[in-house]
Amino acid sequence: MRGFAMLGPGTTGWIEKERPKCGPMDAICRPLSLAACTSDIHTVYENALGPRTDMILGHEGTGEVVEVGSLVKDFKPGDKVMVAAITPDWNSVAAQGGFAMHSGGMLAGWKFSNIKDGMFAEFFHVNDADGNLAHLPEGMDVGVAAMMSDMIPTGFHASELAKVEYGDTVCVIGIGPVGLMGVRGAVLRGASRIYAVGTRPNCIEVAKKYGATEIVSYKDGPLDKQILELTKGQGVDKVIVAGGDCDTFDEALKMLKAGGIIGNVNYIGKGDYVKIPRAEWGVGMGHKTITGGLMPGGRRRLERLASLITTNRVDPSLIITHRYDGLDKVEDMLQIMHDKPIDLIKPVAIINW
Amino acid sequence: MRGFAMLGPGTTGWIEKERPKCGPMDAICRPLSLAACTSDIHTVYENALGPRTDMILGHEGTGEVVEVGSLVKDFKPGDKVMVAAITPDWNSVAAQGGFAMHSGGMLAGWKFSNIKDGMFAEFFHVNDADGNLAHLPEGMDVGVAAMMSDMIPTGFHASELAKVEYGDTVCVIGIGPVGLMGVRGAVLRGASRIYAVGTRPNCIEVAKKYGATEIVSYKDGPLDKQILELTKGQGVDKVIVAGGDCDTFDEALKMLKAGGIIGNVNYIGKGDYVKIPRAEWGVGMGHKTITGGLMPGGRRRLERLASLITTNRVDPSLIITHRYDGLDKVEDMLQIMHDKPIDLIKPVAIINW
Amino acid sequence: MRGFAMLGPGTTGWIEKERPKCGPMDAICRPLSLAACTSDIHTVYENALGPRTDMILGHEGTGEVVEVGSLVKDFKPGDKVMVAAITPDWNSVAAQGGFAMHSGGMLAGWKFSNIKDGMFAEFFHVNDADGNLAHLPEGMDVGVAAMMSDMIPTGFHASELAKVEYGDTVCVIGIGPVGLMGVRGAVLRGASRIYAVGTRPNCIEVAKKYGATEIVSYKDGPLDKQILELTKGQGVDKVIVAGGDCDTFDEALKMLKAGGIIGNVNYIGKGDYVKIPRAEWGVGMGHKTITGGLMPGGRRRLERLASLITTNRVDPSLIITHRYDGLDKVEDMLQIMHDKPIDLIKPVAIINW
Amino acid sequence: MRGFAMLGPGTTGWIEKERPKCGPMDAICRPLSLAACTSDIHTVYENALGPRTDMILGHEGTGEVVEVGSLVKDFKPGDKVMVAAITPDWNSVAAQGGFAMHSGGMLAGWKFSNIKDGMFAEFFHVNDADGNLAHLPEGMDVGVAAMMSDMIPTGFHASELAKVEYGDTVCVIGIGPVGLMGVRGAVLRGASRIYAVGTRPNCIEVAKKYGATEIVSYKDGPLDKQILELTKGQGVDKVIVAGGDCDTFDEALKMLKAGGIIGNVNYIGKGDYVKIPRAEWGVGMGHKTITGGLMPGGRRRLERLASLITTNRVDPSLIITHRYDGLDKVEDMLQIMHDKPIDLIKPVAIINW
Repeated sequence: MRGFAMLGPGTTGWIEKERPKCGPMDAICRPLSLAACTSDIHTVYENALGPRTDMILGHEGTGEVVEVGSLVKDFKPGDKVMVAAITPDWNSVAAQGGFAMHSGGMLAGWKFSNIKDGMFAEFFHVNDADGNLAHLPEGMDVGVAAMMSDMIPTGFHASELAKVEYGDTVCVIGIGPVGLMGVRGAVLRGASRIYAVGTRPNCIEVAKKYGATEIVSYKDGPLDKQILELTKGQGVDKVIVAGGDCDTFDEALKMLKAGGIIGNVNYIGKGDYVKIPRAEWGVGMGHKTITGGLMPGGRRRLERLASLITTNRVDPSLIITHRYDGLDKVEDMLQIMHDKPIDLIKPVAIINW
Repeated sequence: MRGFAMLGPGTTGWIEKERPKCGPMDAICRPLSLAACTSDIHTVYENALGPRTDMILGHEGTGEVVEVGSLVKDFKPGDKVMVAAITPDWNSVAAQGGFAMHSGGMLAGWKFSNIKDGMFAEFFHVNDADGNLAHLPEGMDVGVAAMMSDMIPTGFHASELAKVEYGDTVCVIGIGPVGLMGVRGAVLRGASRIYAVGTRPNCIEVAKKYGATEIVSYKDGPLDKQILELTKGQGVDKVIVAGGDCDTFDEALKMLKAGGIIGNVNYIGKGDYVKIPRAEWGVGMGHKTITGGLMPGGRRRLERLASLITTNRVDPSLIITHRYDGLDKVEDMLQIMHDKPIDLIKPVAIINW
Repeated sequence: MRGFAMLGPGTTGWIEKERPKCGPMDAICRPLSLAACTSDIHTVYENALGPRTDMILGHEGTGEVVEVGSLVKDFKPGDKVMVAAITPDWNSVAAQGGFAMHSGGMLAGWKFSNIKDGMFAEFFHVNDADGNLAHLPEGMDVGVAAMMSDMIPTGFHASELAKVEYGDTVCVIGIGPVGLMGVRGAVLRGASRIYAVGTRPNCIEVAKKYGATEIVSYKDGPLDKQILELTKGQGVDKVIVAGGDCDTFDEALKMLKAGGIIGNVNYIGKGDYVKIPRAEWGVGMGHKTITGGLMPGGRRRLERLASLITTNRVDPSLIITHRYDGLDKVEDMLQIMHDKPIDLIKPVAIINW
Repeated sequence: MRGFAMLGPGTTGWIEKERPKCGPMDAICRPLSLAACTSDIHTVYENALGPRTDMILGHEGTGEVVEVGSLVKDFKPGDKVMVAAITPDWNSVAAQGGFAMHSGGMLAGWKFSNIKDGMFAEFFHVNDADGNLAHLPEGMDVGVAAMMSDMIPTGFHASELAKVEYGDTVCVIGIGPVGLMGVRGAVLRGASRIYAVGTRPNCIEVAKKYGATEIVSYKDGPLDKQILELTKGQGVDKVIVAGGDCDTFDEALKMLKAGGIIGNVNYIGKGDYVKIPRAEWGVGMGHKTITGGLMPGGRRRLERLASLITTNRVDPSLIITHRYDGLDKVEDMLQIMHDKPIDLIKPVAIINW
């Protein structure tokens, strides 16, 4: 089969591989939609996973089941399905403890384009089909449904990590597609005032539609100073980090109230140490909690978050700015993700077989 | 001072009383808006609190501070304020344990028109002004702000009790003003499908505006059967009880998934035992949790929930169907609450001094 | 193979059956120890599961693996293992939501001697071996390890349900083997004063060793009155229900503080409705939470609770009052469970092959 | 009145001051026991609070009430009382939100020897007596009860922050008096294996009595390497930090499992940034939570933790290695705290009037 792959550090291209084998619990799907992610860029160009050779890229998309293993009960060839970027081993000790995304080791619930080939191919393999697929809701656009793989579950997870509650003031640092979903996720857990940090006009517009009440630009000075001024020195209850680097946490801590929580869903690509300022952390005793986590995957999560689309709680179509037609176009799609033009939020490719 | 009181069981009328004294931590206010509550009806006509004589009614409204005690720091005469129906003793052991509404005994955080005179008077007394008042947000209508005393905090508390999460299916039993706020509160904690139980056209319309996705009528048969049919036998994740009686819990349990939660905010007026069906409760082992609680009161809660109004997360004006002008009209307002005409959701009186 | 079975309602006996088949994820074990449970008695004599024919009994014990399926990674023939009474389907939607014990339907994580044959046989079948077996800790007595199947996880779950915290006062109703583990579990979550309800001298002695501070007898009057007297009218923070019936909840509610929690782990065998007294439930608003749940099963739970034995936090040998030798003796063991002599707490049979 | 004070940076001595005034909600006490804390040393010699002049030291002890304000209900002159180091403003917004220790600003619930004079004097002042005093349990030694001010609530809080659960493996870094209470607190929330880090023989002995299962010395190499070796590469579920500095978190993160929590109760005295290693933090996505907090104070906490002493769950007398007689001896007591001889764990002075 044909797939679009990382050939080696910094290079991509089409390759031929054998179609993956289907184990007793697994499914083989062909993609109906595919989306490129900044993680694909990190993988190819920033050595995020280390050197890889001829690894098919892609972890966002939907599919049609073409084969299932003998133990699979709820899916059959022809079924249209959503698939999460994270496909855990559900019987692992980690999953039994509530951290399925870390089954098999920290972050190892992420298998596509990491531990095995990804989705940018004629066929892709899904481990534990009953546990990791979900039926595509009737009438849902496959482009929109591709946002269920990573953008929505990752963005919404931020507010779970930060335990957003009724009336919380929240700062969302970074309003790319994940941060935008972070804004919407905060609204849907009860946030009142939401300070969204970003500069791209497209993103600002969507952030406001999703419920951001103020827009803050990192170009206007340190974020903590801006937020403290906007909140009359009080700071915010919660910070969602969906962009930035090790230094971002310095600002995040300084704008956070005692008792507050920072929820990070951003991949931090470089630096030795995340910076937690000692004094503003209350010399260790300010009840300012710092946490961060990979999105939860799996079937239940897909079903539940998809129900938020079908009931119009969130409209993911707002973040899809670029649409491509056909598997061949994943190359262009990845390129635009790399180029990041000013009007890009999220690209998706639709594949008709 | 003049006040509208319960004279005795089943009778109401205007009385003269001394203006309440202001202790060192207290405030005396004159009302700017007042709302009648079904609890006032329960108190007067249904013996909810036992026999009372010449007790001024009312626990919903806003006010202007006219006097504060020597220890009060954050409020002064002339300040316009929100007041919650529940005004706890914040230094009590109950409050320190997170249950301020039960300070001084179960439910004893409810003082207005229960332990002391209520708000339907020229002046009312607020214990612990710094702990129990909140400044009226600039530009907020005092009629709307009167919904902050009980309707919003009680309705929203239901989803806190039921721990509503992203993608939960929720049945809201009863869509009077509290249940309507229960619908909105569920949306703002991430509910997807919301089955709202009610029959009054006004209420149904607001329920839909607040985010209910289906309307169910108790006239169409047992609620559990209807819900199980609508959910293809699965039941719902959570049930919010904002109406009904001891038997309601029988239906609620039967429509609830294993692992689900029932959150009750309804005053249950009669009957010896709330009915929990043994078999559907999983013979004691189904992880179906039943809980219920009086709304949290106090300043922080007022400030936080009010911020949900100012950021347009909830529009309480939708439930205000009747407006009255002047303190004298609280009599009419209570009467309409008693009569409950088909178009009534919530009445409010505005008092201009 | 030979097994001891429920032949039909009220009758038991030895039968011959085919040795169970081993699926790709499964294991076949032969028992090394077996324990009888009151649930076996409920099954045979009280119609707890409905009429069953020729169903092998038993859901408590340890084993030696004799066969594993092709997908099993962490276990091999010859391994000595602990097995929980509850063996969930870990990739189910229920398990993904944290309620593995209800995978496949409410309570359906309980498979042994319910959905399939139990352990009282020459061989027994374990679904999802990697997810549901745990290696027997080195040096642990197999009799003690049999308490890991049900007694410890069920008893300890009560304090999880009741969210016992530092300094909680707790009433444990029922001090059979599960209730005794409930006492120990409460100590190990921080309970201070523990009121243990029971009358059997053996049990009282162990309850005190496990950390009960007061013993209460139901023969001395209604429990709520006794507890309220002992606590000077305050009541307790939490109630663990490990015995009794529908009426027990009436007493439990009446002895519970506002804000308290009842955690039930008892099988409630008869009655239409569990009785929740309306007034003492705070007319629906007292924040008294009622919950109950089947024990969590699976490998992680086994490993973690077993570590509490190996670090001497709990000594399960104290509850084992009767030991039998050989598979043939499970008949006697079940009989003594049925007869319930005054000195019985828990019987166990050791099988040497 | 006479008091032992910080005269200025690095110097202490006896001074005369006016007896503090008693507000309407307050109490004035004379000390019955006093304990010195490393925080006193940090204050005087390490500039922890900034330069202070003639500030009476001390925040640990018990007292006898000599005067109460007019609004105090539950205490009267002659009552013997426990007092926590943290005496919050219970009606503050921070306290209403569950963070009473940060009422009035981050850490500002700590008033003794910080915002006002401390306890090392003939009299000391307690704000909000009903909220911040607790009656001394009958028969409790005042020396032991002095451990209720800080050592027990701080040490136990670590396990609350780290959310220790049944079967957790826990590393306790630092086994001074707070860390030792951290060990005991971990046992009483269900920890199984506890790795205690320390070198002083006295402390090691008490750590084992409190339930530590392994002792680790920082002299034997990096802690994370030692712990990873002891746990066969798995790491621990939770880390309690009760000693060390900014670098300690580097080691703590590296020994922590994905999904784990670090709970800090240690005052971190210097350094710009607490070090969170990016890679081992899962590049931001490992669900490793870092938190830390000042102990909760107040009456309820005192009553509940004291009940753990009276029910023999914890024996604080094990940490009291040095006893002094009389108020005059607080000078010697502070000196020994400064000198820190090898056999010191915690000193206490008993004052008989």
